[in-house]
Parts: sequence; C-alpha cells; structure tokens
Amino acid sequence: MASPKILIIGGGPAGLSAAQDITDAGGEAILVEQEGFLGGTPKRLHYSLLAPDLKPVEEVLDPLIDSVQQSGARCMTGAKVESVNSGRNGFTVTISGGGKKVEEKVDAVVVATGFAHWDPHKKYEYAYGVYPDVIDFKDFEKMLSDGNIVRPSNGQVPRRVAWLLCVGSRDRQVGKFYCCRLGCAVSIKQAMEVRRINPAIDTYVYYMDIRTYGFWEDKLYWKSMEEFGVKYIRGRIGSINRGEDGRLIAMAEDTILQRPSEVPLDMVVLATGMEASEGTRETAAMLGLELEEHGFVKPLESDSMPVSTAVPGVFVCGTATGPKAIPDSITEGSAAAIKALNYVRKRSIKVQARA
Amino acid sequence: MASPKILIIGGGPAGLSAAQDITDAGGEAILVEQEGFLGGTPKRLHYSLLAPDLKPVEEVLDPLIDSVQQSGARCMTGAKVESVNSGRNGFTVTISGGGKKVEEKVDAVVVATGFAHWDPHKKYEYAYGVYPDVIDFKDFEKMLSDGNIVRPSNGQVPRRVAWLLCVGSRDRQVGKFYCCRLGCAVSIKQAMEVRRINPAIDTYVYYMDIRTYGFWEDKLYWKSMEEFGVKYIRGRIGSINRGEDGRLIAMAEDTILQRPSEVPLDMVVLATGMEASEGTRETAAMLGLELEEHGFVKPLESDSMPVSTAVPGVFVCGTATGPKAIPDSITEGSAAAIKALNYVRKRSIKVQARA
Repeated sequence: MASPKILIIGGGPAGLSAAQDITDAGGEAILVEQEGFLGGTPKRLHYSLLAPDLKPVEEVLDPLIDSVQQSGARCMTGAKVESVNSGRNGFTVTISGGGKKVEEKVDAVVVATGFAHWDPHKKYEYAYGVYPDVIDFKDFEKMLSDGNIVRPSNGQVPRRVAWLLCVGSRDRQVGKFYCCRLGCAVSIKQAMEVRRINPAIDTYVYYMDIRTYGFWEDKLYWKSMEEFGVKYIRGRIGSINRGEDGRLIAMAEDTILQRPSEVPLDMVVLATGMEASEGTRETAAMLGLELEEHGFVKPLESDSMPVSTAVPGVFVCGTATGPKAIPDSITEGSAAAIKALNYVRKRSIKVQARA
Repeated sequence: MASPKILIIGGGPAGLSAAQDITDAGGEAILVEQEGFLGGTPKRLHYSLLAPDLKPVEEVLDPLIDSVQQSGARCMTGAKVESVNSGRNGFTVTISGGGKKVEEKVDAVVVATGFAHWDPHKKYEYAYGVYPDVIDFKDFEKMLSDGNIVRPSNGQVPRRVAWLLCVGSRDRQVGKFYCCRLGCAVSIKQAMEVRRINPAIDTYVYYMDIRTYGFWEDKLYWKSMEEFGVKYIRGRIGSINRGEDGRLIAMAEDTILQRPSEVPLDMVVLATGMEASEGTRETAAMLGLELEEHGFVKPLESDSMPVSTAVPGVFVCGTATGPKAIPDSITEGSAAAIKALNYVRKRSIKVQARA
C-alpha cells in the first residue's frame, strides 16, 4: 500500500498536531499555512502565558513546531490552497505561494483553519477604538508578552485594571449567542500575570458567570483570589465613558450588591469572544462543508464524530468547529490524523479488493 | 512489521473509540471491560438523553459498540487486568475472566478506566439517603430512562422539582475543589426532559454560576428558559429538611434578591460531581501512573501531551484524567489510539535499526 498523503490546511496547534501524528504514522503530510511561520494565532498575536499553569505559550508550541519540521512533513508557509477537486482517486489540490502554483494529489484533507478574535469595535458602548485605554484580549496579550503594562493613553502604569467578560459572547444584541469557553480563564490568567508583574496594580473582573470549568476552578479561579488578590464583581458594565481627569468611568451594576455604580478605571480589557476565521469560512466554502448555526464548520455528528465532516475524506479539528483551548485543539488534531489515515486505508483496501 | 497489539482497559466511550481506531488502522485491540457489557458508565447507569440535542445516549454509543464488535477487536467483558509487566519487548498482561486466566503480550496499553459519580451521602445537610425524595444525578437519569417521574416517597407526580448544582464540586468542605464540567449541562438537560414529559411540573435550578460553555449557552441554557420554561435561582441551598406535610423544605439564600427563603419542593436532584473511579485508581497503581492533585491520572503534559503518561507505552484517555463529556472522551480515545500506534511503530523501527 502506498503511503497515504494528506493535506493539512492551517499550521496552528490543531494542524501541527495532525501533521506530527500523520508523519509519525508513516504518512506524508503537506501542511499549508497562510502566514510566513507556523504556530497559528497564538504565535501571530504573541500570546503570553497559558492558563492555568502560567506556562509560556512557546514552551507548548515550539516543541510541536520543531518536531513537525523535523518529522519530514512538508511545511509550506506563506501559502494558500487555491482549489481542491475531488476525484475517484482522492483530491487534486492547487497551492499558491512564493509567486508560483503547485498541484498536488492527496488522499485526504484535514481542515485546521482556526478562529478569529471578535472585533469589539462593534460593541459601541465600550468605546474600543475611541478611548485608547480600552483594549482587548489580543492587545493585552501582546502587552504582557512585552512585559510592559502601561496605559496606552499616557504611558503610565495603571492603578486599576478591569476585565469585562463576554464581549461578543452570550450577547443577543451583537448576534453572538454562544460562550467563548475561554474568556473567563484568559481574563483571570491575565489578571494573575498583572499581579505577578506588579502587585501594586489592582485587578477587577466583571462577570455574569465565572466559567472556570474542570480543574480551572481551583488551579485558576481560587488561586487568583487567594494567592494573587484578583477581585471579582458580578455585574455587567453598561458603558465605558471618559471622566474629567482622563481616566475611564465604567457605568456598572453590581448584581449581587444590587446597586449601580460609577467606577473609575485606568485600563479596561475587553474579554473578546471567538468566531470562525475568514480562512475557515473560505475553506469551508471551497470544500463544500456545511457551517453550523454559529458560523463554524459543522462536524458530521458533534456527539460521536466530532472530527469527521459530511464530505468523505475531509476532516476537521481545532477552533474551526468552535471555541477551544490549545490542549483540546492538539487532541483533536491527533484524532483527525487517525480518522484521515484510517479513511485512506479503508479506501485503498476497497480499491485492492476491486482490482 | 508485525501488526501492533494494544491492550485497552475500559469499554466506555473513550476505550471503545480507541479500540475502533486501532483496529481500523490495522492494529490488534484487546479491550478488557470489568462489566458484562460494553458502553461504560452511561450504559451501566441507564443514562437517558444527551445535552444539548436531547439525543438518546444509545444513538451515540450503540453504533460505536456495534462497530467495535464488528471490527475484529477482541472484547473481553466481565474481565479484569490482574497484572501488567513491562519488559524489553512490550508488556506481559494477565487477564482474568469467566473463571480462568490468560496471559497476553502487548506492545502498548491504553487506560480508559473512567470516573465515578461522587457519593452525596457525605453531604449530610442535603439528607440524601434520609429523605427518599432527595435523589442524585444517576437516580434521576434512570428515572428519566424509565419515563416515570414520580416522588420515590409516595409514587406521586411531583409539582416542583429543583436541582442543586455543585454537590461534591467546588466545595472545600467535602474536599472536592474542582468543577465537574457537566453538572450545569446535565441538570438543565434533565429539567428540559421533565418539562417535555410533563409541562405541569415546575423546574428550578439553584446555581452559583451557570457553566454552559461554548454552544451549550444558547442551545441548552437559553433554550431551557425560552422554550421549556426552566427557572433559575442564583443561590446556594444551606440544607434540605422535611416539612409537616412530608414535602421537602429547602433553606435557600437567593444571592441576587439577597434574601433567605424556605422553599417547599416535592423532589430535589443533587447534581453530583465526578471523581476518579476505583478502576482508575487501581489501574494507575498497577501501572505506576502518577495521579494529579485531584486524584485523576496525571498526563505527561496536560497542555501538549494530554493522552501520554510518564510511563513509556502507556496512554490514557477519557474521564480517567478528569471530568469530561462523552464527545470529548471519544475524541481522546482516537488521540490515544494514534499515539499508542505511533509509539509501537517508532519502537519497532528502532529495533529493526538495531538488528
């Protein structure tokens, strides 16, 4: 049996994981990544530390990138899949990159095209893009990676920083109904990082529900309160305004204390939700994959076949099917790898039987 | 290269998934399950419908069981792994069952030994085992599967049923710090089932945080309120008592309305947490696997290698490493399958190179 050849679209955690397992299994992996580097959104946006252990994101991703590069997988960065045509003997794929086009024949396709951070400009009342001290997750991850926590408006160290959870999540008003699964954990993790870098900065998390499921409960949520002094306020912020001294004023309602308040803040971090990336939407359209109601790729059966799709030979993993933490994306990459390999194997056994 | 032979301990969703993928990949799977049937805890305890789509659990598990049985995997039910000895050429395993013992040589081991429902007898103030109308998740799943929702005390249809979230979870007092990941979803799902069977029954969910992460937010939480009329009360129940008329009285504090109340209820369902099963603890001890701080099997690296362990050739998946929904266990089973297969492949390449 010829060694199976599998196209992987996307070089983030899920795609890297799939490429590694396919190559380790003796398959041939072609990994196509639109950016000029591997690692996906966590690398592109310079994520800082990971929840709950505050481990640098590089410590998780770099070994995976190295092992994929050494595995013999063909990694094409700065490249794009232009077309995929399904035929009797698999798929014919056109890939462009570096000013030229190549055609490849592959036996299966793994979609690992990822997510995008929701754009908080659309939540007008939080004034993102209006007041420079209102920033979002990606802005603050970059700031933490640079180790330089200052108010963008004046370059000074903030005294009070607040996180607003569920921005672009759980919000009918902006058309994003689902929970982003990670907003609580990332906010808490960021607040812990702040407190570790500078314990003089007070940190407040405004929440509807704290969703630190599983071990995040004690390893992240409790720890943030007990060891890092992060403070929690149950309530939704109605709007962010600018006070006379240039500081931000949050119009809040504390739903436990049952009272409205005006809270002066030096910086506000919007815990922005996740949505399907443009690459995910384009790739789904190109491959004829159905989207589910929130705009992500629809798995064949979300309960029992979460990495299979309705298109034979096309598999999907990572945040292309919905919000997901890095470890879950890595696990799904492995699952997609074996499903793709087994698909090719079954098909070639059938072909041999026919011959 | 001889076909890899892999022992899978546990025939629930994770183990079944691993067995299927190993067999589909041309490997030999020996699946050992202590019960007399496959399907694990969901089958043993007669789970009813799955969140969020209210799909019968059989519709998810039965096709998986059938396909494993037809795949050529060797399924040994009513059997137990007595010992595992690691040698130069893999593992020697002793399996007992049906009154006899067999010895097998295998190349790798996948641990899929699952979880146990936390025993609510230990939460004295909720009087489980004292008042018959206080039941727990597993009792109520069985009742829903039987389609017969009645008060155990008198066989009558209840008018008001309440769910108490986080029983044996997020609770320092009982030594269970972590969140069970599923208590909110299962409670809401059960309440929706009740309302579908009998809309005359009022359903109340007492919560600290509603953790319907991801698509469970709108597909489960919102839907339960808007289409099923499930009611939510933020507050913790201090204790369950018996009123003069034989009904239950919950001593509650509503943390939004800020007032204590005595709520008469006909039935209370305790949303019991998850802990490592006895089988998981025994298997870990037998294989020399480390446990993490909550008593589950510790993965090699929870961020990047969630199905690998510190013992070469031993992999782990499903609820043996922590609370997990069925789809996640199925995905992890696939991931453990390819990691085990690739481990055997790498080892045999090394052996060939030495020869």
